[in-house]
Amino acid sequence: MNKAQLIQQIKSKRSFLCIGLDVDLEKIPSHLLQMEDPIFEFNKQIIEATHHLAVAYKPNTAFYEAYGLKGWMALEKTIVYLNQNHPEIFTIADAKRGDIGNTSTRYAKAFFEQMSFDAITVAPYMGRDSIEPFLEFSEKFTILLALTSNPGSGDFQMLKTGHKKPVFERILQKALTYKNAEQLMFVIGATQPESFKRVREIVPNHFLLVPGVGAQGGSLEAVCQYGLNAEVGLLINSSRDIIYAGNDINFAQKASEKALEIQQKMEILMAHL
Amino acid sequence: MNKAQLIQQIKSKRSFLCIGLDVDLEKIPSHLLQMEDPIFEFNKQIIEATHHLAVAYKPNTAFYEAYGLKGWMALEKTIVYLNQNHPEIFTIADAKRGDIGNTSTRYAKAFFEQMSFDAITVAPYMGRDSIEPFLEFSEKFTILLALTSNPGSGDFQMLKTGHKKPVFERILQKALTYKNAEQLMFVIGATQPESFKRVREIVPNHFLLVPGVGAQGGSLEAVCQYGLNAEVGLLINSSRDIIYAGNDINFAQKASEKALEIQQKMEILMAHL
Repeated sequence: MNKAQLIQQIKSKRSFLCIGLDVDLEKIPSHLLQMEDPIFEFNKQIIEATHHLAVAYKPNTAFYEAYGLKGWMALEKTIVYLNQNHPEIFTIADAKRGDIGNTSTRYAKAFFEQMSFDAITVAPYMGRDSIEPFLEFSEKFTILLALTSNPGSGDFQMLKTGHKKPVFERILQKALTYKNAEQLMFVIGATQPESFKRVREIVPNHFLLVPGVGAQGGSLEAVCQYGLNAEVGLLINSSRDIIYAGNDINFAQKASEKALEIQQKMEILMAHL
Repeated sequence: MNKAQLIQQIKSKRSFLCIGLDVDLEKIPSHLLQMEDPIFEFNKQIIEATHHLAVAYKPNTAFYEAYGLKGWMALEKTIVYLNQNHPEIFTIADAKRGDIGNTSTRYAKAFFEQMSFDAITVAPYMGRDSIEPFLEFSEKFTILLALTSNPGSGDFQMLKTGHKKPVFERILQKALTYKNAEQLMFVIGATQPESFKRVREIVPNHFLLVPGVGAQGGSLEAVCQYGLNAEVGLLINSSRDIIYAGNDINFAQKASEKALEIQQKMEILMAHL
């Protein structure tokens, strides 16, 4: 998928919602556990109930790897299902990968070719040659961690470097010099909304993937104040708040209601665009 | 495995060699490709030919994920094989994972429980709550990226923060304050041997996992000059130089010869311990 297609989808759905498919067998409705593949079944029903309200889905690989082979199989089935039934959806592997050059190429092949995701999240710590291999794939996006939403983000991301610039700003600036930098997006957590003004000064045009709205305490409105750009430029993620809104036979309906609530707020926030 | 057992193994084998099992189907001998699981078959033969010379094996997950389900299956078979046949071996999942707290717990379960690795490599960028969940598992080790061996390591790891300390030193210092910090090890690349003196001032007692000797240009002797401590304290990784030393029916024998060459150098370097 290219950027124009993503923007087109956002404008037609009046939504910039990304739904995190972080499936925990201890949290999904118990009636699903008797099925052959409860993880995939859960995802399929969530997708069917919400795909008109969301523009992106983001399975976090940790939740699948924790179940071993059957988890990996459920992940593969989920991306195949999305691509076959909802090809307009932007798909993100929240994998936070990154390694030396030839090894990052392997990860890129795993998520862009072996599974056909549109985007992958990547950890920046190892620098240029760990990130550029992902950017070599055309019409695929590399979503670099910059300022994350968790408490530990203060440990290293906010360390002051020369001219008092925190590390995460250096990462944004440096990343713009990487080859095919137009295929970058950045993770900026909603829990630090005051950072969006500075982020938009450095990367006015790139999409930002924003976790931390809802369960983690971030505010949609605060993020949008500085985060929105003329092309919207935001993908706001919500995982637990939506997918675990209900816990019985009507779970997908409950998820849909929660997603609608967020989409309606988004429609108002992007009304001027 | 606990630290005393690892040290015992090192002393009895007179080796601190870690062999990287980074299997590329385009590089392994062609006669293996007709077998049912060429990746596992390759690993098994390499392990059988070298396990008396090495104390650790380190599959990099990227190489397995690139082959999808069958790759993940080969990884699982490899760790089961190692644990059943060579329980004294220290096993490292080179996965470079890391995520917000409850998600890191999932990765820890994937590699410490679902697959029974002794250690996993973890990326530090997200800070304390992304790292401590791995440290909760007793007799398991968390190997934190500090100073990597690749060219891009200069981008962010060497950025100067307050008192002119580079980011990677801050990571070492901060990590020592994490709960169960005694279960940490650190990745320090061999390509910057001058850093080992400073690293040993900050973490005199922790094990260091050292990539970059051989193909990437690092020197074993230079690393040992400051890196060795009274308990050896080093795991020197070699991947391509050993596993692809040969490319025909005798590949495992060739790998063994190359591993022996390195082990003999190590025996001399640790003679005084």
